[in-house]
Amino acid sequence: MTDADGADEAFTPTDPQQACFEAGIKFGSLYHQFAGTPVSPASARSLERAMSEAIENQPHCEAVRVDVLDERVRDAIDHGAGYTELTGSLMEVEMRIGYGDVAVETRMEMEDGYPLMKLVSVSEGDS
Amino acid sequence: MTDADGADEAFTPTDPQQACFEAGIKFGSLYHQFAGTPVSPASARSLERAMSEAIENQPHCEAVRVDVLDERVRDAIDHGAGYTELTGSLMEVEMRIGYGDVAVETRMEMEDGYPLMKLVSVSEGDS
Amino acid sequence: MTDADGADEAFTPTDPQQACFEAGIKFGSLYHQFAGTPVSPASARSLERAMSEAIENQPHCEAVRVDVLDERVRDAIDHGAGYTELTGSLMEVEMRIGYGDVAVETRMEMEDGYPLMKLVSVSEGDS
Amino acid sequence: MTDADGADEAFTPTDPQQACFEAGIKFGSLYHQFAGTPVSPASARSLERAMSEAIENQPHCEAVRVDVLDERVRDAIDHGAGYTELTGSLMEVEMRIGYGDVAVETRMEMEDGYPLMKLVSVSEGDS
Repeated sequence: MTDADGADEAFTPTDPQQACFEAGIKFGSLYHQFAGTPVSPASARSLERAMSEAIENQPHCEAVRVDVLDERVRDAIDHGAGYTELTGSLMEVEMRIGYGDVAVETRMEMEDGYPLMKLVSVSEGDS
Repeated sequence: MTDADGADEAFTPTDPQQACFEAGIKFGSLYHQFAGTPVSPASARSLERAMSEAIENQPHCEAVRVDVLDERVRDAIDHGAGYTELTGSLMEVEMRIGYGDVAVETRMEMEDGYPLMKLVSVSEGDS
Repeated sequence: MTDADGADEAFTPTDPQQACFEAGIKFGSLYHQFAGTPVSPASARSLERAMSEAIENQPHCEAVRVDVLDERVRDAIDHGAGYTELTGSLMEVEMRIGYGDVAVETRMEMEDGYPLMKLVSVSEGDS
Repeated sequence: MTDADGADEAFTPTDPQQACFEAGIKFGSLYHQFAGTPVSPASARSLERAMSEAIENQPHCEAVRVDVLDERVRDAIDHGAGYTELTGSLMEVEMRIGYGDVAVETRMEMEDGYPLMKLVSVSEGDS
């Protein structure tokens, strides 16, 4: 992946690029670490908190907010099982990543019935 | 897997067998759902609670206690990363499963430097 | 959990109990390790094989067969996304566990629209 | 997160920003979906392939290469267990993401004894 003049070694992403990369890592981590977790309205609060605090451990991750949507969890539970498994359609997630001067806001929300992870803002400097 | 006289259809595990099977399911679930989660002493309490409450949702699971071992977490953190990833050597787990008349106690503990999931007791009736 | 007369130390599960516990561990591990994996008919074969070979690494696990059900995967895919996430309703699983003289067969199958992990047989000796 | 003049609604990331975000998502997904999987030299090939094909299902993901490092896997196995659990130090990963005109190359490699996910190149146009 490097050519003769070593261009590859010299590559340095811009701060906004690195910040967006970091933001994506956190989202993928959160989703695939916790998807499948047994969840009920009674256990939703502790799961929200653990997800936030776990991902906030990762570098450049300033804040994570997870809302497990009790109404949707209830709808997903039937047969008296009393619980379901966490998927993207049962939660809303917002994150703030900081890298250098750059702040990135991301959000997971439903679009056409599908959970979509998206960049909400990328801002440099003190704005 | 069934033979001509349909013996397989007729198979019914004993309550202790089913209880031990259920206990194993909970252990495997807990371990492989949460192993790899970013963890620090600061986030350990919320993770313990979420793990317990998540697995207690599963059928026949009466109680789950998870202790993330802060001292070991601290030892596993270096390079100033501030966090590590959850593995079996960083926690102790105890569970109580009930199936019919049978109560099963299980524990994950270190043995020869390896985390081992084991049956601590299988008791029937009111004992 | 141990009392003065050390009763707890003395507990040894029977081979069938331990075999059923081991069988449960494998099932919970397989399910919660791989649930959530992006899957399509094109990637289903490699996922089946990786799941089998991964869990067969675990102690006392003699054989694992995973069938990802292409028809159901196709039904779960829409919006042109081209893939879905693995859940219990998209696969069938069979396992054989051996512990001492005991062989345990397990199967995950749909029951009332829900994936259910069950003990299919527990047999001792040379049968 | 939106202010009175609806500035937030109007935000559109640049293609390089979105491409880097997508690249991060794939890395976080791959890592946290598969970390913890039981692995041995014998099962490493099927796991590599399943990881690649699973993540290549995700949007904008053009190619994923996973190398499980047999030598390190062997070193991580002891006690005759015959397997270990997948972590970042046991594999090398390269990915290519395409978004619009932008191609992003990423790599996970060891740095100071730690696995680090990094952007290797971000290039626009036909270059």
